[in-house]
Parts: sequence; structure tokens; C-alpha cells
Amino acid sequence: MTDAAAAPGKPGLAISPLAVPLPEMGVIDGVRLAIGHAGFYRHERPDLLLMAFDPGATAAGVFTRHGVGSAPVDWCRAALEADGGRVRALVCNAGCANSFTGAPGADAARRTAEAAGAALGVAADQVMLASTGVIGVVLDAGRIEPVVPELVAGLDADSWAAAASAIMTTDTFPKGAVAQTQIDRTPVRIAGIAKGSGMIAPNMATMLAFVATDAALPPAALQDMLSVAVAETFNAVTVDGDRSTNDTCLLIATGKAAHDSVAEAADPRLADFKVALRDVLLSLAQQLVRDGEGATKFVQVTITGAASDASARRICRTVCESPLVKTAIAGEDANWGRLVMAVGRADEPIVREKIAIRFGHLLAAVEGMVAPGYDEAAMSAYMKASDLEIAIDVGVGTGRAVMWTCDLTKRYVEINGDYRS
Amino acid sequence: MTDAAAAPGKPGLAISPLAVPLPEMGVIDGVRLAIGHAGFYRHERPDLLLMAFDPGATAAGVFTRHGVGSAPVDWCRAALEADGGRVRALVCNAGCANSFTGAPGADAARRTAEAAGAALGVAADQVMLASTGVIGVVLDAGRIEPVVPELVAGLDADSWAAAASAIMTTDTFPKGAVAQTQIDRTPVRIAGIAKGSGMIAPNMATMLAFVATDAALPPAALQDMLSVAVAETFNAVTVDGDRSTNDTCLLIATGKAAHDSVAEAADPRLADFKVALRDVLLSLAQQLVRDGEGATKFVQVTITGAASDASARRICRTVCESPLVKTAIAGEDANWGRLVMAVGRADEPIVREKIAIRFGHLLAAVEGMVAPGYDEAAMSAYMKASDLEIAIDVGVGTGRAVMWTCDLTKRYVEINGDYRS
Repeated sequence: MTDAAAAPGKPGLAISPLAVPLPEMGVIDGVRLAIGHAGFYRHERPDLLLMAFDPGATAAGVFTRHGVGSAPVDWCRAALEADGGRVRALVCNAGCANSFTGAPGADAARRTAEAAGAALGVAADQVMLASTGVIGVVLDAGRIEPVVPELVAGLDADSWAAAASAIMTTDTFPKGAVAQTQIDRTPVRIAGIAKGSGMIAPNMATMLAFVATDAALPPAALQDMLSVAVAETFNAVTVDGDRSTNDTCLLIATGKAAHDSVAEAADPRLADFKVALRDVLLSLAQQLVRDGEGATKFVQVTITGAASDASARRICRTVCESPLVKTAIAGEDANWGRLVMAVGRADEPIVREKIAIRFGHLLAAVEGMVAPGYDEAAMSAYMKASDLEIAIDVGVGTGRAVMWTCDLTKRYVEINGDYRS
Repeated sequence: MTDAAAAPGKPGLAISPLAVPLPEMGVIDGVRLAIGHAGFYRHERPDLLLMAFDPGATAAGVFTRHGVGSAPVDWCRAALEADGGRVRALVCNAGCANSFTGAPGADAARRTAEAAGAALGVAADQVMLASTGVIGVVLDAGRIEPVVPELVAGLDADSWAAAASAIMTTDTFPKGAVAQTQIDRTPVRIAGIAKGSGMIAPNMATMLAFVATDAALPPAALQDMLSVAVAETFNAVTVDGDRSTNDTCLLIATGKAAHDSVAEAADPRLADFKVALRDVLLSLAQQLVRDGEGATKFVQVTITGAASDASARRICRTVCESPLVKTAIAGEDANWGRLVMAVGRADEPIVREKIAIRFGHLLAAVEGMVAPGYDEAAMSAYMKASDLEIAIDVGVGTGRAVMWTCDLTKRYVEINGDYRS
């Protein structure tokens, strides 16, 4: 399935060596999906996704904090507000971000929502929108409107895998995750798909993620749980530090499961659900890194001993986004001096004489200098693995952070130097 | 001269297409230089520089703000303090940064200064030190000590060009700048050399710069002028956002010129000197960018309309360091949407509906969307030039900043994935 599903990505892009297979997505009761072709790409590929939700579905969203944003993000924020978190549909297009497009862009977003709303017999502001692609080009709603009826006709509960492919841009494999959990002893399911490969950074990635569950949860509880889970997952991955104008993570609850609705996120009956939601989001977030443009290494970076968790996070991000660290990893070079460089330039409290660095179980540095018995050969052998773990203690306090990133390769430059052609 | 002088760089590195020739460096009365070979590289190349200053020379320094720093930076800070800015010599080595090397590194620095001091008959703390190269390896002072006598014997006033080459690491061409100016109608000269190519970022670059003048200026006035000039020059260039542990800019005044010593940097008699000093530093700083690892484009980015100059500077730096912006420039792709992305992710005040973007004289965007009559063909033609100017107005206030950067190419990844081998 992975190979065939990857076809929608840019032609000629080899599938990431770090790819993982799409799981059996199954269905979420109350969710139907359909994909279509609006022609936003020069080559033949699906570039439209319609998701329809049965009456009673609730939604929460986390959106880009980007200062420019985009017409679909503006639309979703306003629509969620206007309708108190009730949603009936989502239209997502790839190939055009509809960001930085002023009033014409806003108009195109509105027309898209209206077209879907009319075809489904629901209010336009119960239709969520998401767009991904080139910034600065106004969405041509006229390409979407005529396709909407066939999308509606094609809605099917079992189309999650096709949906995961339709939303890809430079992605080389479709991304999905599922979980089975329980609320108040009633089984509930969570399924999610995501896209994103470059322009991935905390707050958030160039990424779209659509997650649905059959649980019965009011919008406020959904929003609380989603915000917490995003902070530890999508906001803990970085490919290139560049943040998109369009990042959107939507969580929809159809309420089809037989448990009583749980009003508060803090309710202990939601403990298992929260773990499962985090697992789904973390899997999707890590898949974004595994499909990082040109990536050949999946790297977990852990910072300990910082003045606070927030400080650890800032150091961690500086390490994860350092071009010199990332190119050394690409070159399988255990040049841990560059980690020292990156830690030091984060401008956070550190105690130079106490810094310790590990690659996996190998100690590279301790007490502010190379470790006694440092074994360059063992280190070089370690660097050849595709999944790496780097841990740095900065010797100040108990602050801790974990993030995931990938290496920076020539392929990243190739892909991004030539994106629009 | 450029070709021959470039030989000390890493073998196989082609000279940057953006290289500029080393000017006729001339001499600075009271300064003599010599280069030598300590063997810090596997291949044959000079890797040592000794500069000797006549009695009475004063000095000022601006050093890395990096949290880890290095033994030579620690040494210089302490020595300048101890001696009230009187200096007699500088020893610089390439091939080993002597950073993150604890007490053994500090000891190696001290031994190096003592060896030079003994050979020149001056106090060790009147010897400045600078090191560049791999982080985390203790400097082997035993390689330097035996070479010092021949360095002293070889001191010559006319060796600036050789010195510019001896301090290169991944540099592909030697960097120098000179200026002729006057203080109180007495002619004075300024000459400077610099090295740096990767790990270049404000505060400061991986860069060493040694600038000398025959002016007669006390250390405090020198320090004031140097700090101001560095802010507008070395701290306004960025290659990869990575900051070195060893950055050092030293300004030495020999006092050989016949004017009366001028005590205060604010003295109007220093107006011309300050301009000339800034010119020398700006030329050196821009040469660092022109030799940015793998660079094929030299890019000036101007931000106007920001809430403050500081805000403009933060936006400017975000644009200059965005991998997606830099790869688009490498691909000669006028993908100005990525500029919008980078501006928006700086988390500074902007007015989306007023953002305007220019490439040279071509208007790409105005009032928050693509400019009327936007001409993609003209834009693509513009992007083929080697020197580019990008100007972005963010529509808030009168804050302004200018920085210089280069593109991100596959060569950058190649060079840095394979630095130590």
C-alpha cells in the first residue's frame, strides 16, 4: 500500500529510507471520506479531500501561530468560534496554500466552504478548510466547486488510506496512525492522517493533521486534550525550523461510541483516551520527521540538566535546527564538538565544566571535555544507524526536553531549490 | 595572488564563485607578521600566524558571546583586562579550536603564550591567542613551541597576504581589507585580515579578524569604536546561523602615526577614522559571506517598516537564516512566498495587509498579496544574478535593518557532512 499510495507526491521523489508503512486505518463511526482531482498540480494526482461528519460531531483545532497565516486558517478559527465547535465537513486541497492572498483568498475559501455546505446540506461555517502548497497564490475555487458533487457521491467510511495520500505534497509516503482505547469501559477508536515534510517546526510544522474519534466529547474537553497533546508531539518535531502559514491539526469527535459524554478533560475517565490520543499524534509527528525532506537519519535529542523545562526545550531546538549538527549527522560524522557549539549558542544557562554528551550508550564528553577512553571507532559505527539518540546534560538543574529531528542532506537542498518547477 | 594564497584551505575546495581578490595590503608601521607550520592538518599547509607589535601598542577585542567559548578566548579576555589593553603579540593557529577542552586546553593556551612571550622578550599576558578548527580537541602546544623561534626570525612588515592565507580553514580565498584615512589631518592606515566561511552568525561568526592601525589611540577609545563597528558589520552577516566558540575580532593600534593621541571615541577628530574602520570591517564581513560554504549567491536583505530597529533585525535574521528561503535562492527560484513564511515566523509585529516585497527594483508583493502586474519571467531573470537584493516592508513602523547572507546549496551539505575527514 505504501508504494502505490505514495504516487500523489511529487514525481521522481524516492520514498524516504525512514518510511514506515501506513497501518490498517479501519473506520471511525460517523466519518466518511472521499478524494478527488481539482488539478492544482501539473501532473495527474488526487489533490482534494472531503471528510463528512454525521450530525452531532464536535471539533477542536490547533492552528499555526504564524504571523501571516492563511485564508483557510482564518476561516477555521472563525467557523469554530461561530459554531461552538460543531462541524459537519472538511475540505482539504493540496497544491495551493491560499496564504498571503488578501481578500481574493478569503473569498475563495468562503466559496469552497459554501460549495461543500450546499452539496451536503449543512451550513458553510460547519465546513472546515485546509490548504497546503505554494504560498502567495490565490486558491482557484472554480477548480474545486465542480468536483464537489462527485466527492459527496463518493463518500465512504473506508477511505482513510486514500485520504492520507491525497493530502501529500512533497511527502514521499502517506502518514496515518490509529489507536484503540476506552472511555468508561466503552471501546473507542482514534484514527488520524497527516501530511508534512519540509517547513516543519514547532508552533507548528507545515503540516496538516486530521484526527477523528467516535468518542462523545464536547468541544471544550476536546480542545484541552488536543492542545496538551500537540505541545508534546507536533510541537516537539523539527525538520528545518521553518514554520508554515497553514498548519492545522483538527480533532473531530463523532459521539457514536456508547459511553456518556464526558464534559471535562480532567475527568479521570479520560486518562486512557489522553494516552491514546498522544500516541496517535506522536506517531504522526514522528512520521513527519521520518519523511523530512531528504532525511536519511531519524534523531531523538534529549536535553537534561537545564535550568527549566522551557530552557531545555530552547536548547533542544537549537541543537535540532543547527545546520552544522544536521550536516554532520548526514555525513555520519560523530563531530560532537558541533553539539557543544549548538548548546552554547542557545544563550541558555549551562555549566561548561559539567556538560556531558552521549550518543546512544556511548559517552562522548563528560565534565566539559572529551570523555576518558573516548572511542572514535565505536562512535563512527554508531553513527551509521538510521535511528540515532543524542543526549546532552548541561549541568545546571533538572529541566528536561525531548525533540525529534532529521539530518540535512543534499536532497533537502535539491528538493527545495526546485520546489515550484 | 588569490589562487596561490587559497592553497591553505581544504584541498579540493573550489574557490567561491563570489570571491573577491585580496587587495594590496601594504604595511602598518609597528606591525610585523610571520607564518609557520605546526602540523595541525594532515595535508601540508601553513597553520600558524605570529603577529608582533612594537612597544606602546594598544588593543581592543570583541569576542564570541557563545556560552562555551574556548581557551584562547578566555585567555584574551583575561590578558586584555590584566594589561589594560597593552599588547605585544598575537599567536593564531588553524586546525584546532581548543574549545571545550577544560584545564588541559587552558594549559595549552598558557604554554603557547609563554613560548611566544619568551621568544619576543615580552610578558605572556601581552600575547593574544586565537584558535580555529575542530571543537573538543585539546591544542597540542608541543607542536607550536618548537616553531616559535623560526616565526620570530621570520617576522616581516610585508607579510599580511601570507597571514591572511595561514588562518584559513574551509575558506576558499584569503580575506583582507585596507583603508587610508586621517586623524587630525595626519594620515593613518588601517589593515585587516579575517577568516570564516561556515558557522557564521551574528554574535559573532566563526570568524577571526585581526585589524591593525598606526593610529595613536588608548584602549578605551579603541574598544568603543570597535564595539560599534562590529555591531553593524560582523554582527550583520550570517551564513548558517551557527555561532562559533572562538570568534575573535582584535583591533590593535601601534601609535606610530604622528598625531596626538585622541582619548575619547566621541572626539570629532575620529569621525573619518570611524568611517574607515567600519568600511574595513564591513568589507571583511561581506567577504565571509562571499565565502559562505557552498555559496553561489550574495544576498542583501533589508527590512523596513518594523516596530523598531531591533525588531527589524530579528525579522531580517529569520529571513536570512531560513533554509527554505536559502534553498529557493540557490535554485534561482523567486519563491517569495517563502519570504512571507520567514517574516511571519519571526514572531515580531507585522501588518499582513501591508507587507511589500521587492527583489532589486522588481515589486513582487504589495499590500499583503502578489503585486499587480507581477512578472514571473522578469523575476526569474533577476534571480540569475550572483548578487541579489531583497527588501521587505512589514507595514508597522519605521524600524530598519540590513543584513547579508548567502544561499544554501548542496555544496554546504557536502562540505559540512565531511568536515573532519
